[in-house]
Amino acid sequence: MTSRKLFSTFCNKRLSVNGLNKRSVGCYSTSSAERQYIPRRTVMYVPGHDLKKLRKIPQLNTDCAVLECEDGVALSKKAEARVNICQILEEIDFGPIDCAVRVNSVSSGLIEEDLKIILSAKKLPQTVLIPKVDNIDELNYFTDIMKREINRRKETNYRPYLITFIESGQAVMNMVDIIKTGLRFSEEGVYLLDGVVFGSDDFCADIGATRTSEAGELIYARQKIVMTAKAFRLQAIDMVSIDIKDQESLERQSLEGARMGYTGKQIIHPSQIDTVNTAFTPSHDKVEWATQLLDAFNTHHQSGQGAFTFRGSMIDMPLVLQARNILQLVKNIQRKQ
Amino acid sequence: MTSRKLFSTFCNKRLSVNGLNKRSVGCYSTSSAERQYIPRRTVMYVPGHDLKKLRKIPQLNTDCAVLECEDGVALSKKAEARVNICQILEEIDFGPIDCAVRVNSVSSGLIEEDLKIILSAKKLPQTVLIPKVDNIDELNYFTDIMKREINRRKETNYRPYLITFIESGQAVMNMVDIIKTGLRFSEEGVYLLDGVVFGSDDFCADIGATRTSEAGELIYARQKIVMTAKAFRLQAIDMVSIDIKDQESLERQSLEGARMGYTGKQIIHPSQIDTVNTAFTPSHDKVEWATQLLDAFNTHHQSGQGAFTFRGSMIDMPLVLQARNILQLVKNIQRKQ
Amino acid sequence: MTSRKLFSTFCNKRLSVNGLNKRSVGCYSTSSAERQYIPRRTVMYVPGHDLKKLRKIPQLNTDCAVLECEDGVALSKKAEARVNICQILEEIDFGPIDCAVRVNSVSSGLIEEDLKIILSAKKLPQTVLIPKVDNIDELNYFTDIMKREINRRKETNYRPYLITFIESGQAVMNMVDIIKTGLRFSEEGVYLLDGVVFGSDDFCADIGATRTSEAGELIYARQKIVMTAKAFRLQAIDMVSIDIKDQESLERQSLEGARMGYTGKQIIHPSQIDTVNTAFTPSHDKVEWATQLLDAFNTHHQSGQGAFTFRGSMIDMPLVLQARNILQLVKNIQRKQ
Repeated sequence: MTSRKLFSTFCNKRLSVNGLNKRSVGCYSTSSAERQYIPRRTVMYVPGHDLKKLRKIPQLNTDCAVLECEDGVALSKKAEARVNICQILEEIDFGPIDCAVRVNSVSSGLIEEDLKIILSAKKLPQTVLIPKVDNIDELNYFTDIMKREINRRKETNYRPYLITFIESGQAVMNMVDIIKTGLRFSEEGVYLLDGVVFGSDDFCADIGATRTSEAGELIYARQKIVMTAKAFRLQAIDMVSIDIKDQESLERQSLEGARMGYTGKQIIHPSQIDTVNTAFTPSHDKVEWATQLLDAFNTHHQSGQGAFTFRGSMIDMPLVLQARNILQLVKNIQRKQ
Repeated sequence: MTSRKLFSTFCNKRLSVNGLNKRSVGCYSTSSAERQYIPRRTVMYVPGHDLKKLRKIPQLNTDCAVLECEDGVALSKKAEARVNICQILEEIDFGPIDCAVRVNSVSSGLIEEDLKIILSAKKLPQTVLIPKVDNIDELNYFTDIMKREINRRKETNYRPYLITFIESGQAVMNMVDIIKTGLRFSEEGVYLLDGVVFGSDDFCADIGATRTSEAGELIYARQKIVMTAKAFRLQAIDMVSIDIKDQESLERQSLEGARMGYTGKQIIHPSQIDTVNTAFTPSHDKVEWATQLLDAFNTHHQSGQGAFTFRGSMIDMPLVLQARNILQLVKNIQRKQ
Repeated sequence: MTSRKLFSTFCNKRLSVNGLNKRSVGCYSTSSAERQYIPRRTVMYVPGHDLKKLRKIPQLNTDCAVLECEDGVALSKKAEARVNICQILEEIDFGPIDCAVRVNSVSSGLIEEDLKIILSAKKLPQTVLIPKVDNIDELNYFTDIMKREINRRKETNYRPYLITFIESGQAVMNMVDIIKTGLRFSEEGVYLLDGVVFGSDDFCADIGATRTSEAGELIYARQKIVMTAKAFRLQAIDMVSIDIKDQESLERQSLEGARMGYTGKQIIHPSQIDTVNTAFTPSHDKVEWATQLLDAFNTHHQSGQGAFTFRGSMIDMPLVLQARNILQLVKNIQRKQ
């Protein structure tokens, strides 16, 4: 077997992604394969009914800002939140911040109205978050409305990133099916499934567990979710640390989540941003490794050699892509400073 | 969408249950939906061959007393145990205690004889426990015998609660299928699948693990079992603490199990009852929360408003049912004092 | 039911295996059922390109020696490694050591060449290890080449033990299907699937996790893998301890793995052998239990009594087989001393 053929074998192997991710070639059209990696180390909720807080988003150092329609907004304020969000989408320059909207769940009965109004805004969010997806039926229902509302607009090239929430025992059980369905719709071009969030508090309520700061009661769900998300090359966003004042616990949980493979964490207060960003930023060693590996890869690739060893290990495409994502993440971080 | 329509959306959503449980409307006939929640914080085994111990059951403060045919009874005493159990079922007034019988496993070859004799007793147990269910075939086999033996009686309205045991690697792997099969038979009216027990010691023997007091080697199975049981709105009964003298370890394990979402625990000695009951009793705060939530729900429901917020969160039906179960459990506990 | 019939019920029940293992009667042909249990407490990699190290294998106290083609061998040395391995297979008397070869993964594009050359050696390895099996397709691909290369030889009764590696999120997800496929090919007689290895470092790289010495980030995968392997009565080989100098950590990890149900551990240096062998050797108490249980079993079996109680527990066939495996393992260990 020639080394060229060997290399093509590597390239056809599904693409791994590590703490960072990108989907397999062939899984998506060229256009999506070319889409940049969107860092979401920090995913911060900002209540949609609170215009003052919404307007402060550009000053925040969060990677992703979530314009919130769901749990952070009382039922009596849902209508107000939707209107505010449309206004803010038009008014604010989010710059390097990933602009996301979290709609209400399918089971709430509010999601159709959410999508109708938000997808009629002049500017649209880069990312849509859908909470409490327990099974395929709910994702199908959401996707149907998405398609309809996107088609209603004149421009038809809108295709947001999609992030789904796993927040119940059924959702953990059905997670593989939910992801596969989401990836199928992504291939069709409706959206681009890009990540999964572990909604630990609703999960605990659902199965009757009690959350502790150590989160020992969540090991099974937390590790199954990150493994499954990463197995499909999706981002994995870890649970919220609720006690805003406890920075020590926040740091411990963040580092722990990063070690498990999570790429980011939900936050609910600006005071949590820096600690979490730091925990999910690749270390200096990792960046150096990525830089040198890509240099070696480029050299070998130009000479047509294909597979190669680096620091004593044989390098395959997953590692090359990991390295690329690390450098892309670092570049995006620097762009913000 | 009107609030009335919204409310109906909530009601049709599957019913969540927390530390406590009740199945979805539609899943069972009206009659079963009306069945009371049976607390089983403590599930205590009493060997069927020991008439003296059996007669002491009414003095025990256990939620559930198990008249035991299986592991607690030597092979040479099986016949005696069956006869004793029939006698005790007739003789004793169990009062508020859930009266259960644990038959032998399908693979023991003893289960048919167990069911023949026990289901011919004058009074029948409220609950049947079937150990070592490794796959659907075993549950089908058991259910066929149940049907036949129940039909043999004149009164045909006997329909016990059923609790199955997960005690092997295969059982953990097949758990979802086993539960779905049990729920299907429940819809048919043979029994009412009401809970799952984690048989940790047989599980360890099956996979060659060694049990420690900390139970670190059991995290995967223990948390998968509770999550899956709760995802189907079943009770989840945690592993036995074997060392009867170690009250500290018993308390730690009980609290840990309750935090994971277990609703009760198996016990093997009266000295374990109080500690375990306490660990699985809802806290004062939780009872207060449930009382106030149900008050708010009733107010909104009467005014036709449907969905509502309570203490800052939007309330859905799962939370309403959780609250109901908490109060029902507390009521049952008080009934016994 | 007569005790004879009862006993036959026991015997038809799938055979359990504990820390040690043997597959169910009926699962394999008589010949395979008669195959001895091969202890693999220590599974040590020896790089195929290093003739000097290969020649030292007979002096090692490892249970299994792996002639390594994969990660331990640079791309430029693969050809040399294959030739060396063929030479060593012929040259060395492995004595009581299980002689294994680890080929490259299917996705490397190197496996066909590996198998062609190694399966043309004069003497063949007792065991073949295939790394990075992520799905059924890869196992099918490997098996096709195995069949073809084995058929090419004149003697056709070669049937190695097969051990597969679980080293990615997809592999953990697909593990049950992979094992079932491997068992089907085992029934056909191509090989005898005998164990599963947890490749923790590639797994971490795959899902973007970071390995720590405590391995808290691996609980889900590590425990799911051992449970699933044991549920199918396969050996389970635990992760490598990378830090060769840290004997304390090695011992802790070994004892922990043994408690979880693993039957052995991968090692990368002779200094790790003794610690790991000790951790995975049955204790004196366990050996005594096994000896007495088998004595009791033989007595009852000869008298035609079938099922029986021993030390207060009813004994079923799984326990009998566990006892047998323990004694067989001990016998094999003694043979080496």
